[in-house]
Order: sequence, then structure tokens, then C-alpha cells
Amino acid sequence: MRTLYHHWLHPGARLARLVLGEKGLETKDQVQPPWIRDEAFLALNPAGEVPVLVDTNGSTVAGTLAVAEYLDEVYPDPPLLGTDPVTRAEVRRLVAWFDDKFRREVTDTLAGEKLVTRITGNGAPDSRAIRAGRANIHIHLRYIAWLTEQTRWLVGPRPTLADLMAGAHLSLVDYAGDVPWDDHPTAKEWYTLLKCRPCFRSLLADAEPGLRPARHYADLDF
Amino acid sequence: MRTLYHHWLHPGARLARLVLGEKGLETKDQVQPPWIRDEAFLALNPAGEVPVLVDTNGSTVAGTLAVAEYLDEVYPDPPLLGTDPVTRAEVRRLVAWFDDKFRREVTDTLAGEKLVTRITGNGAPDSRAIRAGRANIHIHLRYIAWLTEQTRWLVGPRPTLADLMAGAHLSLVDYAGDVPWDDHPTAKEWYTLLKCRPCFRSLLADAEPGLRPARHYADLDF
Repeated sequence: MRTLYHHWLHPGARLARLVLGEKGLETKDQVQPPWIRDEAFLALNPAGEVPVLVDTNGSTVAGTLAVAEYLDEVYPDPPLLGTDPVTRAEVRRLVAWFDDKFRREVTDTLAGEKLVTRITGNGAPDSRAIRAGRANIHIHLRYIAWLTEQTRWLVGPRPTLADLMAGAHLSLVDYAGDVPWDDHPTAKEWYTLLKCRPCFRSLLADAEPGLRPARHYADLDF
Repeated sequence: MRTLYHHWLHPGARLARLVLGEKGLETKDQVQPPWIRDEAFLALNPAGEVPVLVDTNGSTVAGTLAVAEYLDEVYPDPPLLGTDPVTRAEVRRLVAWFDDKFRREVTDTLAGEKLVTRITGNGAPDSRAIRAGRANIHIHLRYIAWLTEQTRWLVGPRPTLADLMAGAHLSLVDYAGDVPWDDHPTAKEWYTLLKCRPCFRSLLADAEPGLRPARHYADLDF
């Protein structure tokens, strides 16, 4: 059986779950809290980070982009990176936009401060970071609106890894109740379409005891 | 003509130069300091970051991994990612190791503090960060030694994007004179082989006026 080592708080692990779902690949879940040192897990990934995929043939693949690219190569249906090099470059540009820029400016400052500090008990949330994240998120939601107004999804007429990476990050910020959807109807429409996809179901079922998601988190009509 | 927007202080832009060199692709250099806001450049890459490649057919490719993967797809000789999905996954794992973990633990704390703060005039180097970077680098050099003892290069018998990414970061730290090569002869041997490759020539010619590289930086017998 295929196994995914993941944690609901890790955006890259959320991406792996979305890709596996989009491709309809049955997978055993293995929850791996990123802040616990685990020698057996370090043997799978010396960086000690999720996601790690152990595929049915025993191959171990470690790291957000390594897992996503591997799955798209080995299970190409549906293709999530695009069918020509220029489209794939645009998908990868936006994947990096969300996993680098959005993460720094929004995910880390909102979900990071509010959720990770609560779960790990590692200090209090930094209210200045949270204010910065709440200001920054508008630019990104406007960018999503601008892109999807041209081509329905972020890159072209079908969802790609770019949409899934954006969804992986946004769903975490949404869990914390910090996405101002009502100010951004076009981005909300795009997210609604994403949220309705079967691959999103497992993410919407996430609910850490003692740290419940925002009320509308799993609601498809929010 | 192909154009690469880059800056010598950006590890991802150094990687792009190495990949272009490794594939023997003639390219016009366009230096783009990352800390200067430039509207024309933002039109090429809304994230405002190097590297950006404008290929001979006019296609624009933005971002470290997007450029590297695009070049390997469109100009597959020599292949830098490996020829099967599992090898490519291992290359991508190590690319992320150096561009995420090594960057956070070493490049940012050494080259970042010592070079970037000097060039931008943005505050004084943080001596605590520099001390941390000097302690962290040993683990990475031991890891390089361990990997290359098994298979000459980081992944298998030929250099891949993993070696080039490691070289892009290490060459920047080496510019600042902060790689303890003498403590790590196996890693030094690997870096010597890398440094002797023609693709490395343009990096070794980097010499910012007023901020000269360490004496041995361009020396192939260091």
C-alpha cells in the first residue's frame, strides 16, 4: 500500500494530499508531527520534514516539490503541470509564488502564528505578524482574481498544481478564519470551485481537537 | 538572443548561470539588483525576483526552479535531473535541501549577513547569525562527503541539478571566505571537480568592486 507521511499544518503535505486525491490514488495516511524528532522518519527523510511518500513499489520520495512532480510523472492522469514546457514554467512560477511568497507574507504570519504556536505551545502569537499577514493577503487574493478572470483557473482552463498549491496554503489560513472572502468575490468563486473538488474532501475533514477550524471552513456554500 | 536577468548574490540566479553553462547555451547577461524596484522587470516577473530567462523564442520563464526545469526540458543535453522518476525525485529532494535548508542554515546567515548587508548598506551583519552559520555548515559538508563517497556526485555518477544547486550556494559562501574546506577533504574534492567545470567559469569571475571575494575564491587549486 502507498503511504503518505504528512501533517495537516504543513502546506506541502496538504498539497501532496490534494495531488493524490486529484489522481485518485488510494493512500494510507501516516501523521508525522513536524516538531517531534523521530529517528525512523529521519531515515526516510534526513531533512525531517513532511511530506514523504512511500510508493507501492517501495520508492521513497521526500519533499513538497519532489512528491508533487513525482506523482505527476508516474501518474499522469490528469496532468497537473501542463502539457508543454512554457505552460509548465508558468505553473512552476505560481507554485513558487504561493509556496515562497504567499507562505512568507501570509501563511507563516497568520496560520503559523495562530495555529502552530497554539499546537506546539511554543510562545504566544505575535500580533504584529498577524496584522502584517492580514494586510498582505489582499494583494494575493486580487492576484488570484486577476489571473482567474483571464483563464478560469490560475493557468488555463483546467486546474493545475498552481491552483492546488494556492489551495493548500489558503485552506490553512481559512482554517484559522483569516481569509477575507467577502472582499474578494472572484477569488472566492475560484476557491469555491476548488473546494468542491473531491480531492479537497480530506482537507475539509481536518479538525484538530481543541483547535477547531473556523465555522465556514468545511462549508461548500460559505 | 537569449537573456538572463540575474544577480551574483542570488543563489537561484547562480544556478541558472550554471545550468546555461552546463548546456552550452549562449546568453546575454542582464544584471538586476534584487533590492531595486524596477517596473519593467516587474512586468517580466511580478514577484520581482531573479532569475528570469527570456528565451530565443520570446518565452519568459521566472523563478529558480521554473528556469532550471524549463532549461532541462527544452535543452535536454546533458540531462541534469536524471532519466527516471525516482532519480529525479532524489535530485529534487537534494535541490530543496540546498535551496531551503542550506539557505536558511548557512547561506542567509553567512553570505546573507556578510555580503548583502554590506552591499545594500542595510544595517550591520548580525554576529550571532554568522556564528550559527559557521557551526551549521559542518553538517552540510559532512552530508556532501557521505553522499559523494557512495556515488562520486550527489546523485549517481554524473553531476545533476543537485550538485549545481549545492555549488550555487557554496560558491556564494566561499566568496565570503566562510567554507572550512580544510576540515572536509572529501567535500573539498567534490567542490574542486565542480569548480573545474567550464560552467563554473562565469561564477568564478564574479568580483564586486569594493567587496572582493576571498583570496582562494577563483583558485582551482585551493
